[in-house]
Amino acid sequence: MEKYDVLIKDIIIPGKEGKWDIGISGGKITKIEKKIEAQGKEVILGNGKIAFPSFANMHTHISMTLLRGLGADLPLMDWLQKVIWPLEGEFVSPEFVRDGALLGIVESIKTGTTLFMDMYFFEEEIGQVCEEVGIRAGLGFGILDFPTKIAKNPEEYIKRARKFAEDFKNRELVFPVICPHAPYTCSPNTLRMAKELADEYGLLLHIHVAETKGEVERIKEEYGKTPVRHLESIGFLDKNVLCAHMVWTDEEEREIIKEKEVKIAHCPESNLKLASGIAPIPDYVKRGITVCIGTDGAASNDNLNMLEEMSICAKLHKGYNMDAKAIDAKTVLKLATENGFKTVGIKAGKLEEGFEADLILVNAETPEFQPLYDPIAQFVYSSGTECIDTVICKGKILMEKRQLKTVDEEEVYRKAKVWREKILSFLSSLS
Amino acid sequence: MEKYDVLIKDIIIPGKEGKWDIGISGGKITKIEKKIEAQGKEVILGNGKIAFPSFANMHTHISMTLLRGLGADLPLMDWLQKVIWPLEGEFVSPEFVRDGALLGIVESIKTGTTLFMDMYFFEEEIGQVCEEVGIRAGLGFGILDFPTKIAKNPEEYIKRARKFAEDFKNRELVFPVICPHAPYTCSPNTLRMAKELADEYGLLLHIHVAETKGEVERIKEEYGKTPVRHLESIGFLDKNVLCAHMVWTDEEEREIIKEKEVKIAHCPESNLKLASGIAPIPDYVKRGITVCIGTDGAASNDNLNMLEEMSICAKLHKGYNMDAKAIDAKTVLKLATENGFKTVGIKAGKLEEGFEADLILVNAETPEFQPLYDPIAQFVYSSGTECIDTVICKGKILMEKRQLKTVDEEEVYRKAKVWREKILSFLSSLS
Repeated sequence: MEKYDVLIKDIIIPGKEGKWDIGISGGKITKIEKKIEAQGKEVILGNGKIAFPSFANMHTHISMTLLRGLGADLPLMDWLQKVIWPLEGEFVSPEFVRDGALLGIVESIKTGTTLFMDMYFFEEEIGQVCEEVGIRAGLGFGILDFPTKIAKNPEEYIKRARKFAEDFKNRELVFPVICPHAPYTCSPNTLRMAKELADEYGLLLHIHVAETKGEVERIKEEYGKTPVRHLESIGFLDKNVLCAHMVWTDEEEREIIKEKEVKIAHCPESNLKLASGIAPIPDYVKRGITVCIGTDGAASNDNLNMLEEMSICAKLHKGYNMDAKAIDAKTVLKLATENGFKTVGIKAGKLEEGFEADLILVNAETPEFQPLYDPIAQFVYSSGTECIDTVICKGKILMEKRQLKTVDEEEVYRKAKVWREKILSFLSSLS
Repeated sequence: MEKYDVLIKDIIIPGKEGKWDIGISGGKITKIEKKIEAQGKEVILGNGKIAFPSFANMHTHISMTLLRGLGADLPLMDWLQKVIWPLEGEFVSPEFVRDGALLGIVESIKTGTTLFMDMYFFEEEIGQVCEEVGIRAGLGFGILDFPTKIAKNPEEYIKRARKFAEDFKNRELVFPVICPHAPYTCSPNTLRMAKELADEYGLLLHIHVAETKGEVERIKEEYGKTPVRHLESIGFLDKNVLCAHMVWTDEEEREIIKEKEVKIAHCPESNLKLASGIAPIPDYVKRGITVCIGTDGAASNDNLNMLEEMSICAKLHKGYNMDAKAIDAKTVLKLATENGFKTVGIKAGKLEEGFEADLILVNAETPEFQPLYDPIAQFVYSSGTECIDTVICKGKILMEKRQLKTVDEEEVYRKAKVWREKILSFLSSLS
């Protein structure tokens, strides 16, 4: 008799009538049938649960979870300059990055995410943690013009990014990404070096673009062009570029984005909380641009909860555009799952045979799923993270019945408490 | 030795240093001290938990929980006329209202609410359920100009509302409210009759006002005035009026609201989802108007989760107004708790001696509360309902460790499933 690594029995799959069995082998969904007559090394009973693809969180700084919510109620530039950068100057180290990543990964798994795109320092620490825990990540060193603990100048950042690309280019779960921070923190020359490195290794570029009105003004002043036009003029934009935020773009820039097949990571909560504005997502989607969703770091969000991000995305754009059809639940779910995996070239984000087994099982015996009329709409509009019962990444069960299986949650919190003491005492010395 | 009904040990109270004991007797918080040397009939160990006031959900139609999410992605008027009103015409009955209320109350407790303001049909059913379960509610029959199952004309609605006021005027947890539906569904004469009835019994009036731009246009066309001016001109507005929504008001109307001490129930999620718009909440707050928060019904939200409502409220107005200081976490918490209780004249919404014991205990051993820097900010911006561990209403424990103590959750879901079948088969007959 055939044997699956994981066999899920009697599960609801949105869009399909009745209940289904899902067989998982070698990290892939290998069979979906009404009744699979086979054994599973691990068997999960569906029992009123619904299967969804897991989330791809397409923009975050996961180690900043240790700085959760600090500097609340400040706009982006004040928040960066008065709170975040001084804290990072004091604390960022391999150990900080590692412990912060662990805390962020615990939260990511508990909220249904199996892939995140990260930009920060000491990314090899994050890579190691991801491999230990069994979660996917696209990781890149932030590349800047100004010095930080990891490099003194752009050349040194690029060197560091190259070494990381070399070290992590053939891993199973983790892959390197090239991350010039933003057009306002990287000169055209730095951006060109980053692009060359990405092309050399065939990697994605991940960058913050057009996040605030102030950024647009600054770039216009410096280069006589808006950020997207500026990036285009130096040959930076192509289908391997993922731009986070993209709040402030005009019609012509959107056409450039569409034509160059640039991908967008929409971060609605961070944009709202930092008062950056509201991105024209329904318009991007209508133009056929690949839009994904990201949480941004927990310092500006203040969590890594993609379910909340979906819910806000779905409601915000209706209300802001005063059009109840501006974006629907099914589209938003696609943005948060399929589009992310597609952007990084992983065949996941759909529950179909032959796709990677990145999925979550959601408990419908919760108030938000009762009565159960439309699983996708209720997942997007109504549900809370408590409903996320089981999380599977590349066929491996990372959480079952909300119990983490590959990481010691209590130990992670214990470490977070130690950092808390140090950070609070530094903050009180600042003020 | 003194004995408390409930004694909470070693709890974090935001704004107070260290850990505290809370003694509850006769439905009230009677003592808050570092160490209370006394017994409790029930003892709750704080254990890393944080105490907050429970939520006052100041605008909902709780029985509509049985219609959760139906008609998604439609604007208000289509949603009402094509989906909700036909469904209500077919199904609304005492049994529907009762079962729907139970489902909504389960969800309300699990999301930390101990008071809700309701407007619907057969409210005596809801009153009974509230008393059985032990949750507070301000209840009122929707009063309309057009006929429904409960009345043929405004006089009959008023008669029904009067009987309900008479029957429920001296209850412990439940109180009657007079609910003319809206200026566009009630003639000036109906509104006047409702106001007279409210004044006669000393009750609050609860009404939908200025929800959509279309409503404003309609009222202007019919009465030559905007909704708030119209209500003012017929003598409807005073400090006992709670207006839900209030999305579309001009400067002068806001001055009227302020002067008349009218209260506002802000429903950010419903306004977004139905594409009604974004209410000028920071401006109302700055003017000193009492703003509360409500979820609206689960058919347009699609849940009764006040925590989500707070989170969206706090972020939305920053982003929309492009001002990170537009509204802060502490203010939003006050809107969702203290302001609601104040509006209905219940001394609750603060954790102080002498206040009613309506409070929740929140589990901080969850990712969203780690590291714990600012309990209020993290409660508002980061947390999910899973953290709500214990809910106490008027000194009675309704939930502990997320287990409901006064209602059979499974039985409530079982009934919801029966309604689901009936409603789905009616919907398929419609299309």
